[in-house]
Amino acid sequence: MYNFEYKNPVKIFFGKNTISKITAEIPENTRILLTYGGGSIMKNGVYDKVKKALKDFDVIDFGGIEVNPHYETCIKAVEVVKSENIDFLLSVGGGSVLDATKFIAAAVYHKTGDPWDILAKGAPVENAIPIGAVLTLPATGSEMNGNSVISRVSTTEKLAFSSLKVMPQFSVLDPECVFSLPEKQVANGVVDAFVHVMEQYLTFPVNAPLQDRMAESILLTLIEEGPKVLADRKDYDAAANFMWSATVALNGWISPGVPQDWATHGIGHELTAFHGIDHARTLAIVLPGVMNIKRESKKEKILQYAERIWGISTGTENERIDAAIQKTADFFESLGLPTTLTAYQIQAESVNRIVARFEQRGFKLGEKSDIDYTVVESILNDRL
Amino acid sequence: MYNFEYKNPVKIFFGKNTISKITAEIPENTRILLTYGGGSIMKNGVYDKVKKALKDFDVIDFGGIEVNPHYETCIKAVEVVKSENIDFLLSVGGGSVLDATKFIAAAVYHKTGDPWDILAKGAPVENAIPIGAVLTLPATGSEMNGNSVISRVSTTEKLAFSSLKVMPQFSVLDPECVFSLPEKQVANGVVDAFVHVMEQYLTFPVNAPLQDRMAESILLTLIEEGPKVLADRKDYDAAANFMWSATVALNGWISPGVPQDWATHGIGHELTAFHGIDHARTLAIVLPGVMNIKRESKKEKILQYAERIWGISTGTENERIDAAIQKTADFFESLGLPTTLTAYQIQAESVNRIVARFEQRGFKLGEKSDIDYTVVESILNDRL
Repeated sequence: MYNFEYKNPVKIFFGKNTISKITAEIPENTRILLTYGGGSIMKNGVYDKVKKALKDFDVIDFGGIEVNPHYETCIKAVEVVKSENIDFLLSVGGGSVLDATKFIAAAVYHKTGDPWDILAKGAPVENAIPIGAVLTLPATGSEMNGNSVISRVSTTEKLAFSSLKVMPQFSVLDPECVFSLPEKQVANGVVDAFVHVMEQYLTFPVNAPLQDRMAESILLTLIEEGPKVLADRKDYDAAANFMWSATVALNGWISPGVPQDWATHGIGHELTAFHGIDHARTLAIVLPGVMNIKRESKKEKILQYAERIWGISTGTENERIDAAIQKTADFFESLGLPTTLTAYQIQAESVNRIVARFEQRGFKLGEKSDIDYTVVESILNDRL
Repeated sequence: MYNFEYKNPVKIFFGKNTISKITAEIPENTRILLTYGGGSIMKNGVYDKVKKALKDFDVIDFGGIEVNPHYETCIKAVEVVKSENIDFLLSVGGGSVLDATKFIAAAVYHKTGDPWDILAKGAPVENAIPIGAVLTLPATGSEMNGNSVISRVSTTEKLAFSSLKVMPQFSVLDPECVFSLPEKQVANGVVDAFVHVMEQYLTFPVNAPLQDRMAESILLTLIEEGPKVLADRKDYDAAANFMWSATVALNGWISPGVPQDWATHGIGHELTAFHGIDHARTLAIVLPGVMNIKRESKKEKILQYAERIWGISTGTENERIDAAIQKTADFFESLGLPTTLTAYQIQAESVNRIVARFEQRGFKLGEKSDIDYTVVESILNDRL
């Protein structure tokens, strides 16, 4: 096991009828910017519950935050924060709204230069406005970490930053929010959480059996509970198990002391940036390719994954790896997520454009930093 | 799954050569009380490393904290904190030193009445001096929670309290501390952590499969790594896996949304109070009795435990439960911990004395609050 540092101070309120808890978590006389997305919170009753809980506060609404939230929209919110003397941001929505809220919180304090530097140049987050979250969509884990991914429309870029300073003070997770989600969002959420685990698990062994088993615990639970949620959106227990699994998939509990990959995300972000494909759907396409092309350097962990998650224990090593890749793709497909570029009519010229971007940036992906643009090309060609 | 609230802000520094990290974690010009136990930290080099890291601070030593720390000793430390204007407590040792340090931190601010009320009457912890910890003995999980257990010599009582306010600001976990531990302390630590998991796991199902699997992950890892540490104390990876498992066993990661038992601890504390038996050794005695006497109300979870942890899948339900109890006791015995009262020459009259205490207190133990003094009697008689 590697040395590690871990800290996660986010307070979680989990369960039905927990939105009212937020009242006591926000200091009196706080001016709140309520950030949200396309308005689903108006239809499912969450907005009304939040407003009721905040009735003694000054609240200004800021809606319209996009899926794959836009930098340009965030900058508009920063102006509102400044002009309205906002001192607390309450994100009500899914991971996109919360990611945007985190960036807004940090950008307000970014004094010198363009706030885009936080994303593009790793400029340090000096300070941030405190954030709270009411989560309406299990998927990204953003409710219990300091990560944020923002897209810039003008340059078709999608980039991430991470800081302890933008971790929510609290997050409310009410599984009943799942009841009104469309099938596609549930399926995307299951795959998003699944791949978050894989990025922290499917690397190389460093003798960290507890972390391995905890990662496998989440994978098995998502495989078991995901289809239940799809089959019956009002199965509260299934919704709760899915929601908590998605949080634990990326809250730092399975990553201490182990290597991490994130190549699937790195490549997937470009598919979103260029083609507008939903984040989770890009992961469903790319992961089988990463597993196939990196089968040698990930061999021990793929074989462990094959046996412990899918019960694959016979055949040669290559046969077991093939079977594990197939099982993974089959799982994604069973949830309704295609696993090839072809399914999205994406062709070789688009692969070339993405590869050129990685060549230009020059950095290498993966737990061994050995995925350069030529390997990215192999991975994407594997999915044509 | 039940509704739950979760928050754990403890910062963890894990790995070899991490003690020096404490320097940056304590505010400048802080007056520190360094709390420790019997002096093993002088022999294993930890004291010197801590003192080096604190060279720019005012540090006052307070050693001699007992295993099963005494209330009377803690009160002496409270006087030192007040007279020396201490504003930070650094615990350097195992769970006993840290539990004492937590009580000292809370007792300093206990203004009205006897600080013992925090333990005996659940008096609220109004405030606490900030605490840091350098852990030298994996076992109790105290390094990442707000729990503390204190013994009062004059009344042979051993009682617990819990508060977010006494959670350490940071804890340093250096697995190399395990290298110099005596066999008995390692074995005790493995069993202590194992039973912490069982208290949160072996109850009744509430459809929380992720929590179940995470609990099982810790049990399997302790069964695998514990004997390795005993066989070769300088196996760094085994020591690290044992140490991290002991922390995760009681840091709140497996308990959200599920029922908890703690009857084994409740009864075990009396064996320590009356007979001075090591904490973990009392758990090794009591747990098989709890499993046997509560086999009906714990049936589903014992059967799941039997299959997933010990691979027991054939036979009648009662046969599988018997086999699971036997495997559990065998595991404890294999580590050198006896599992009967007889092994400690404890006889019926002592059982009567403990039962009388539970009768007098009147409260009931267990996840269903159905273990009254008559059931305690059955459990203890089972271990004669």
